[in-house]
Amino acid sequence: MNLNLYGYQNQWIIVDMGMTFGHKLGIDLIVPSIRYLEGKNILGIVATHGHEDHIGAIPYLWEKVQCPIYATPFTSILIKRKLMEAYIDDSILHTLSLNARFDLGPFDIQLITMTHSILEPNALAIRTPKGNIFHTGDWKLDPNPLIGESTDWKAIESFAKEGILAVVSDSTNALEEGSTPSEMEARHEISHAIAGHKQTVAITCFASNVARLESIVHAAHEHGRKPVIVGRSLWKMLDAAQSSGYLKNLPAVYDEDDFNSIAPSERLVVCTGSQGEPRSALFKMATGQHPRVKLAFGDVVIFSSRVIPGNEIEVSKVRNHLSRLGVHIITPRGTSLHVSGHPSQDDLKELYKWLKPRICIPVHGEHRHMKAHARIAEELGVSYTFIPQNGQALSIKEDGVEVIEEFEAIPCAVDGNQVVPLNHQTFRDRHKLMMSGVVLASLWIDKKGELLEAYVDCMGVYEVDDGMFDRLEDAVFMCYEGLTMDGNIPSLTTIEEKVRALLRQEIMTYTGKKPVCVVHVMEDK
Amino acid sequence: MNLNLYGYQNQWIIVDMGMTFGHKLGIDLIVPSIRYLEGKNILGIVATHGHEDHIGAIPYLWEKVQCPIYATPFTSILIKRKLMEAYIDDSILHTLSLNARFDLGPFDIQLITMTHSILEPNALAIRTPKGNIFHTGDWKLDPNPLIGESTDWKAIESFAKEGILAVVSDSTNALEEGSTPSEMEARHEISHAIAGHKQTVAITCFASNVARLESIVHAAHEHGRKPVIVGRSLWKMLDAAQSSGYLKNLPAVYDEDDFNSIAPSERLVVCTGSQGEPRSALFKMATGQHPRVKLAFGDVVIFSSRVIPGNEIEVSKVRNHLSRLGVHIITPRGTSLHVSGHPSQDDLKELYKWLKPRICIPVHGEHRHMKAHARIAEELGVSYTFIPQNGQALSIKEDGVEVIEEFEAIPCAVDGNQVVPLNHQTFRDRHKLMMSGVVLASLWIDKKGELLEAYVDCMGVYEVDDGMFDRLEDAVFMCYEGLTMDGNIPSLTTIEEKVRALLRQEIMTYTGKKPVCVVHVMEDK
Repeated sequence: MNLNLYGYQNQWIIVDMGMTFGHKLGIDLIVPSIRYLEGKNILGIVATHGHEDHIGAIPYLWEKVQCPIYATPFTSILIKRKLMEAYIDDSILHTLSLNARFDLGPFDIQLITMTHSILEPNALAIRTPKGNIFHTGDWKLDPNPLIGESTDWKAIESFAKEGILAVVSDSTNALEEGSTPSEMEARHEISHAIAGHKQTVAITCFASNVARLESIVHAAHEHGRKPVIVGRSLWKMLDAAQSSGYLKNLPAVYDEDDFNSIAPSERLVVCTGSQGEPRSALFKMATGQHPRVKLAFGDVVIFSSRVIPGNEIEVSKVRNHLSRLGVHIITPRGTSLHVSGHPSQDDLKELYKWLKPRICIPVHGEHRHMKAHARIAEELGVSYTFIPQNGQALSIKEDGVEVIEEFEAIPCAVDGNQVVPLNHQTFRDRHKLMMSGVVLASLWIDKKGELLEAYVDCMGVYEVDDGMFDRLEDAVFMCYEGLTMDGNIPSLTTIEEKVRALLRQEIMTYTGKKPVCVVHVMEDK
Repeated sequence: MNLNLYGYQNQWIIVDMGMTFGHKLGIDLIVPSIRYLEGKNILGIVATHGHEDHIGAIPYLWEKVQCPIYATPFTSILIKRKLMEAYIDDSILHTLSLNARFDLGPFDIQLITMTHSILEPNALAIRTPKGNIFHTGDWKLDPNPLIGESTDWKAIESFAKEGILAVVSDSTNALEEGSTPSEMEARHEISHAIAGHKQTVAITCFASNVARLESIVHAAHEHGRKPVIVGRSLWKMLDAAQSSGYLKNLPAVYDEDDFNSIAPSERLVVCTGSQGEPRSALFKMATGQHPRVKLAFGDVVIFSSRVIPGNEIEVSKVRNHLSRLGVHIITPRGTSLHVSGHPSQDDLKELYKWLKPRICIPVHGEHRHMKAHARIAEELGVSYTFIPQNGQALSIKEDGVEVIEEFEAIPCAVDGNQVVPLNHQTFRDRHKLMMSGVVLASLWIDKKGELLEAYVDCMGVYEVDDGMFDRLEDAVFMCYEGLTMDGNIPSLTTIEEKVRALLRQEIMTYTGKKPVCVVHVMEDK
């Protein structure tokens, strides 16, 4: 997830505000910490492009920054939807033309068109009183992006001539040799993969890759098939693309209601679910749960997508469901059925040759990707590289980069309607509950110090035999008897502690686990 | 995880009793269901080899089957340790010689040596009154397994001549073209990767691959380095190998206490942790937590292992920690630094050419692997293939396979000291607790029907502001007041229900989440 800040004399701009998916139970959606922004003068959010890891946190974090948002038309439509769903007035959203140049306080910002796996990826040429920054956003060098503009080399060249202090760039594929294949290669490979089948063919891809969708639609018509688009997010992306002027001449497409009326040999289903998401179209199709789209023995499913790390098991599950149906699966392994949207080593080299910055600050990648990126920049003669860590405030100067402040940038989970730091006690407590369950005991002691009632309830504790939970209540009575044998009535705290210790120990003996235990003691005085 | 049963006239043998790791929070270790075995006459467990997915469940499930265990020397040592740790008397463990042939009731069982990524992998030639079964266990065709015996082609040929009814075989790599490279290739590649470095080199691999360990030790000496073995499970495997007669001439090895006294250029650390396990040697080294073994800027870490699906994020984490230390990472991608232990398509073909069974029953793999395996067998002229599902009891006859019984084979988690089916209410409850936390409320009502006390405790519920939890107690009082406004005292059940609904709704309004809620009401009558 991406959120970058540029500041000058306490005037700040935010570049991107992205989210990421959690891979732990109960943590679905993670957004960046914005504690650093508290009390700061924020001039605006500039979105480089419309991927979730660049704009997805806006609906969750915007309330806390309350500033204008700037984006090009396609990205703007995607953001607008998010604002509407979060009941945020979209008058704060400003739609920029491609190649726009505008001022935000001391920052003179120019959008420079790049290529990527989504429409309208922009680099930002940020001119500041202290020097020029080239913030790449996500990019690749695609000579043939199929739809949308090509890389604006003229603007890059002209900005480079002004002299670039620092490049802040995408490191995702810095460990990959060579250059990233063009989207055109995926188009050819998809057409090839669809050819020759006699039954239904389905293909799944990332919904946001509109060029890919167009390729699939073209391939369908090329092979005498009708493209049937299945899955809400594909339709949303198609609509966003057409609303912002793309895909005007797209051949006819069909929806799931048309599926049955098209002969199997004439269907090409395009569907969501490339990551094995259990609510996606493909998962429903693979498990026979889709109300309209049914796959049969001998059908074909093509994965035009990579597996995002952390999703391996989910993807494997959906593939096995397909296999059980007798569906033939075509994965992208060893082919160009999917091509990346990020620069490989030769692409990075190419860009650095044009930009010739003094400083390289790798971002967008894990540490080893950023390190490989820095090494490449160094090889290309960049005199200073700096691998930043989350939460570092850097001073960028002619002679290098200095860390001037470090703050704890703990990512936050979107938890219900709240944004909660991942290191919060709430999650630690839930973790304990998940590991061993919970016991609630309530004790009621009368004026004479006699224990009248003891209720014990367990949740998530394994009952090893039928009487175990009942015996816990008996044990509480016996424990209390022991405590009061000498006629004294212990303090509430002592009773609570002793009963808690007893219950945890008893359950430990039965099950080998010590659950969380809460004891309520009520005493009549 | 593997557990196969063969039965004839209610006499049963168990082939392997393996475990697997859970990838969900709170579920570490999963073992197969053995409910089907209840009340059955079990003659013994035969272990094909010593990998955890073939013997790891023995300590957890043996009590329920209480039968003899049969294994070859190396595997036997590994099982013996498990029995000791579980306080099971090891007199039930019978050590077999390689190539042993013995009877278990109606089953005449012959061990046939195969090759795999561990010592002493055995196929079972099972002669029964109804036909011969070749149960492969895990295998590859390695012409050069480096240590241990080679594939016993003579025994295979001779068994094939008797006529084989069915082959039950490993499907893991049935989607891989060609043949699986020999362990010898890994040996060469490791030697190559170690060469030329000037500082500490570390290498991580699966501890159970003793041939790999030997290769690394040899490579160390070849390059003038001293092999330093770090990690308990590597030492345990080395000890098991030497105790069963292997690695008698292994060159000198060192332990972590020697690390500091060896010059960096002369160290080759062999360590556990190839899967990024947080308690492993490599993880501790990567995070600077290892008490003795320290890595420095410019050191090298070689991964001589693949990433097991589900471990991608953990492996990525340890690699990023290493990257932060400035350690150079060498992964096996595109090399033979790791080679698989399972048969690729050409290996499967080779085996079927020799065995010529009537029936092929693919096991050990996901559905799409088993399906690819079946397809290969069919191509080779096997007249009948059957892809089994967990929980199916099959009747194997001359003319094919019939499902004669299906039972619910729900895998079980090892939870504390209990073995609990994964679909048990305990796990569903813990899942709910993890998603939203828990609220515990106790109410105390006196003889007049007055609410004297109300305690509310939240665990894993996010407190959106400082007073939220206190206000919940106030809300309970107000709720009770509302319930008793007309002078009636509602039933305990009604009070419980109303208070539970109130608390869940209140918390939902604050946090957007409805926690589990337990209410105890005590009434003085």
